[in-house]
Amino acid sequence: MTIKPLADRIVIKPVEAEVKTSSGIYLTAASQEKPQFAVVVEIGPGKTNEDGVLIPVKGLKVGDKVIAAKYAGTEVKLNGEEYTIIGEKDILAIVND
Amino acid sequence: MTIKPLADRIVIKPVEAEVKTSSGIYLTAASQEKPQFAVVVEIGPGKTNEDGVLIPVKGLKVGDKVIAAKYAGTEVKLNGEEYTIIGEKDILAIVND
Amino acid sequence: MTIKPLADRIVIKPVEAEVKTSSGIYLTAASQEKPQFAVVVEIGPGKTNEDGVLIPVKGLKVGDKVIAAKYAGTEVKLNGEEYTIIGEKDILAIVND
Amino acid sequence: MTIKPLADRIVIKPVEAEVKTSSGIYLTAASQEKPQFAVVVEIGPGKTNEDGVLIPVKGLKVGDKVIAAKYAGTEVKLNGEEYTIIGEKDILAIVND
Amino acid sequence: MTIKPLADRIVIKPVEAEVKTSSGIYLTAASQEKPQFAVVVEIGPGKTNEDGVLIPVKGLKVGDKVIAAKYAGTEVKLNGEEYTIIGEKDILAIVND
Amino acid sequence: MTIKPLADRIVIKPVEAEVKTSSGIYLTAASQEKPQFAVVVEIGPGKTNEDGVLIPVKGLKVGDKVIAAKYAGTEVKLNGEEYTIIGEKDILAIVND
Amino acid sequence: MTIKPLADRIVIKPVEAEVKTSSGIYLTAASQEKPQFAVVVEIGPGKTNEDGVLIPVKGLKVGDKVIAAKYAGTEVKLNGEEYTIIGEKDILAIVND
Repeated sequence: MTIKPLADRIVIKPVEAEVKTSSGIYLTAASQEKPQFAVVVEIGPGKTNEDGVLIPVKGLKVGDKVIAAKYAGTEVKLNGEEYTIIGEKDILAIVND
Repeated sequence: MTIKPLADRIVIKPVEAEVKTSSGIYLTAASQEKPQFAVVVEIGPGKTNEDGVLIPVKGLKVGDKVIAAKYAGTEVKLNGEEYTIIGEKDILAIVND
Repeated sequence: MTIKPLADRIVIKPVEAEVKTSSGIYLTAASQEKPQFAVVVEIGPGKTNEDGVLIPVKGLKVGDKVIAAKYAGTEVKLNGEEYTIIGEKDILAIVND
Repeated sequence: MTIKPLADRIVIKPVEAEVKTSSGIYLTAASQEKPQFAVVVEIGPGKTNEDGVLIPVKGLKVGDKVIAAKYAGTEVKLNGEEYTIIGEKDILAIVND
Repeated sequence: MTIKPLADRIVIKPVEAEVKTSSGIYLTAASQEKPQFAVVVEIGPGKTNEDGVLIPVKGLKVGDKVIAAKYAGTEVKLNGEEYTIIGEKDILAIVND
Repeated sequence: MTIKPLADRIVIKPVEAEVKTSSGIYLTAASQEKPQFAVVVEIGPGKTNEDGVLIPVKGLKVGDKVIAAKYAGTEVKLNGEEYTIIGEKDILAIVND
Repeated sequence: MTIKPLADRIVIKPVEAEVKTSSGIYLTAASQEKPQFAVVVEIGPGKTNEDGVLIPVKGLKVGDKVIAAKYAGTEVKLNGEEYTIIGEKDILAIVND
């Protein structure tokens, strides 16, 4: 069972606020706040503009580690796992190891 | 008697917050919140843009299991059954078995 | 005496929250709320876009039974009868027997 | 002395909330609310769009009996008479005898 | 010393709420409210649209007696005289004797 | 050290609310309010529109005495001097001696 | 590990509110307020407009000392260092020594 986002939405899976990366460095989310680090799970086809033309999502691929805007998106639980469906515009940056 | 949505609206029928799918997995909506899982019942013809051109609804078909934005749409009761008339933009994702 | 709506406005006449249709089925509006079922009485010529081009109202005809957005429109009383003047965008769907 | 409205504004003169028309029928505004029935006195030249093109006011002529949006417009008093200067978009409908 | 408004702004000089015109008629602003009658003193060159094209101010000339939207604009005092710098869109109408 | 504003921003230096000009006339800002008279210090390159085209700032040059919208802009202190970085749209008018 | 901003976002590193520059001059942020001086660390590829065309970020390069709008952007901590991911439009000016 999978979640296929519509339009320019992205499905992300939040990761722990503080995780050790392969290079031994910690990602730390501000304490007392909703974690904003996540991994991209699914990417929507893109937004349809006013003329009916599809504008694909750019610069993101499944597996990217991203920083998402706090409080953005809709949380869903599927097969016991939590995901967030979020707009492309609320993915702020990619974190590269 | 049927509901035929106008413009880019969709008629959806909410499903139980937790349902067992054909593959034996449960869909679970966050407890204490309005269920957000639904099945697409009717699809409007699309939105008319500023130039009068019809932009059809994309990526959805009748029978799709979808995740809809919470609190969006208008609930109506027809023949004792509850439906929600909701904008295309408030259908976040399709759930595939 | 008639009301001729301007632009993309529609004149509708609210119907009882619960009415028996020709096929013996009841239309029921949520209790304690403003009825949202109505019949289309007059249709405006359409909206004039930014370039001065008229975009006619689509998909509606006089006599259609419709579901209108709650709290939308302006109520007027003419010849002792109540009508609502409402924007095309606030007509959500057509109900077919 | 006359008021010449600019852009897509209209000068209207409110009429009594309940008046007997030539056909012997009463126009009644909801009690306890600002009268919304009026007669068109002057019509502006139209709105200038983003490209500098004038889009004339459509579908209205001096003398038309209209229904205007409540609370819209600016009231002015000239020669002891009260008028409302209101945007074209706040004229909802024309009432025909 | 003069004030040269930028873009589509207008410099106006408020006039008394009630003044006798050449034809012996009084202009009266609603009591207890900021006077809205004024005379046009300076007119800006116009608004630059999204494409960088200048759209000149239309339908106004220096010396016009106008009705301005209440509470709009910025008041300035120059050489002991009070003026209001106001957007073209807040000049509602011209009053002709 | 200089401040180079980006896009269609302007750097202005507020001047005293009441100053004697070369022609012996006083500029007076309303008492108890933030001074709104200023001198243009730096001008940004202009705004980039939706198509990526630069729309240069018009009608302003360094040294112009201007009237700026109250409460607009961001105050910064550099080398002990106070400046305001403000959008082109918040410069209301130029004052000429 | 690096942060690669998406669209027209910029990664900046706030600097002390008061710092001595190479020319011996102090940058001072208003006391009791969030520092607004920063150094550009990473620049996003640009914004994609409604037609799907990329509009690159203009006028900024890595290492620029900038003044950013107060309260704008999202703060993140990476490797123990604090950064702000901020929109291009919230970078007000570049400070040159």
